[in-house]
Amino acid sequence: MKFVSFRTDAGYRVGVLTAPDTVAEISLDDPERGVLGLIERSQPVVTTGATHAYDDLVLTAPIPRPARNIMCVGKNYREHAAEFAASGYDSGSSVTVPAFPIIFTKAPSAVADPGAVVTVPRAVTAEIDYEAEFAVIIGTGGKGISRSAAMDHVWGYTLINDLTARDLQRDHKQWFLGKSLDGFAPMGPLAVTRDEIDLAELVLTGTVNGSPRQSAPASDLIFDIPTLIETISAGITLQPGDIIATGTPAGVGIGFDPPRFLEDGDVVEVAATGLGSLTTTIAVV
Amino acid sequence: MKFVSFRTDAGYRVGVLTAPDTVAEISLDDPERGVLGLIERSQPVVTTGATHAYDDLVLTAPIPRPARNIMCVGKNYREHAAEFAASGYDSGSSVTVPAFPIIFTKAPSAVADPGAVVTVPRAVTAEIDYEAEFAVIIGTGGKGISRSAAMDHVWGYTLINDLTARDLQRDHKQWFLGKSLDGFAPMGPLAVTRDEIDLAELVLTGTVNGSPRQSAPASDLIFDIPTLIETISAGITLQPGDIIATGTPAGVGIGFDPPRFLEDGDVVEVAATGLGSLTTTIAVV
Repeated sequence: MKFVSFRTDAGYRVGVLTAPDTVAEISLDDPERGVLGLIERSQPVVTTGATHAYDDLVLTAPIPRPARNIMCVGKNYREHAAEFAASGYDSGSSVTVPAFPIIFTKAPSAVADPGAVVTVPRAVTAEIDYEAEFAVIIGTGGKGISRSAAMDHVWGYTLINDLTARDLQRDHKQWFLGKSLDGFAPMGPLAVTRDEIDLAELVLTGTVNGSPRQSAPASDLIFDIPTLIETISAGITLQPGDIIATGTPAGVGIGFDPPRFLEDGDVVEVAATGLGSLTTTIAVV
Repeated sequence: MKFVSFRTDAGYRVGVLTAPDTVAEISLDDPERGVLGLIERSQPVVTTGATHAYDDLVLTAPIPRPARNIMCVGKNYREHAAEFAASGYDSGSSVTVPAFPIIFTKAPSAVADPGAVVTVPRAVTAEIDYEAEFAVIIGTGGKGISRSAAMDHVWGYTLINDLTARDLQRDHKQWFLGKSLDGFAPMGPLAVTRDEIDLAELVLTGTVNGSPRQSAPASDLIFDIPTLIETISAGITLQPGDIIATGTPAGVGIGFDPPRFLEDGDVVEVAATGLGSLTTTIAVV
């Protein structure tokens, strides 16, 4: 199933796509939390009878406020790992291709809605970059999850633009700050259940103002989803609704020489097979 | 005021110390969240009339489940920055004393109660280390907070033992994973309001099995609390109840040659002037 979270005059709602352009509202106690309640309580999906045209909806992120920081994977596509190492912005390591998954976090307050205008003060960062990613949403939590059992813990997927202030990422060594500015985690538009996505067929793309910049199949991941879940859950109990952004392919702004940072008015689109398209506009103030 | 969170047969409670050994219960809608509701709603403190002997209480962490990851500062005492650089475990940088605050996070699920036994699987880490820290609890949120206004946003303080799996911290480059194992953020025992603490007089100590290992005045911080609040809030809106652990002094396990990692049965005590003493026992399984 493909879910969307949205806002109506009567408040927050969650719906399920019944056709590419039609959304049926579902009955949910806490729709302001997006699909989180649905995932936590494993409720059967019951529609209310109300339907909407998809294009008319004011979408919110599928999980507008995660219960803890979004976990993200650094340098998880080979060519991106190489471009990052060559850029001079990787304070974290001299190693090009990591031997172990690099895990950092983005604050829940960084989440932005599909179509959002993300306002970035120039005084805070002069080097805004995009990172197209698809993210795993955990369904059943657990600890010590093996690679072979890992996919059973995946509820579904969404898209994330892992916006990054490259100057802060470099200067502050650990990446949290440069990754967590308000609005720096656009998410959505869809939350799609696992059964709908064939990872072998998933291609992830990132474009800026309509020009293709990033494109890679999910099969290019250095550390695949079962490995990421096994690695994290070895010592950290995963919880329903946890989000793991799986990393970005080559073609980010610092992959160019000179770097092509985002400027006022730029529009970034992250898309992937079956997960729709996530558009974000940058406003520099 | 000095607050404690605790568990009774009737459920969670929050209390205020009316004498060093006496706790008066306070009236609170959501005591299972510790002092979080008190901070978020700026309620006046109303006691219920029930009192307890402090020593009889089963304490919980003052904020058992923070609303987002705990923000932590790396290498924020000069001598510790030097010992860490010399240890070979700092994957993050070749720089000894950082030019900008290093900010990473610990998962909310890592929080452990005062007196807790933290169970650590040997298969996950062979290199458990302690880090005595005092932490700031944010009262009034905000963005773009200046150094001069920063202390007005501090609600109070608590203690944190920033337990660390050094092997994971080194191997995974970004520190989140090695810092966030279940139980790796013991917190408490007290949440003390700002007015009670004179930072100029605060001395922080860490001991292992009764032997002193760490001791430093808060005045030794490389980046002081106003600087940390200004730096983080420049781009990230701070929220009531946010926790910022301010860093650890020299004397951690990897400061010794050979390193002195924590072993099964070791007892770590973190203490600071006016903030009490936080004891944690390590159980390796």
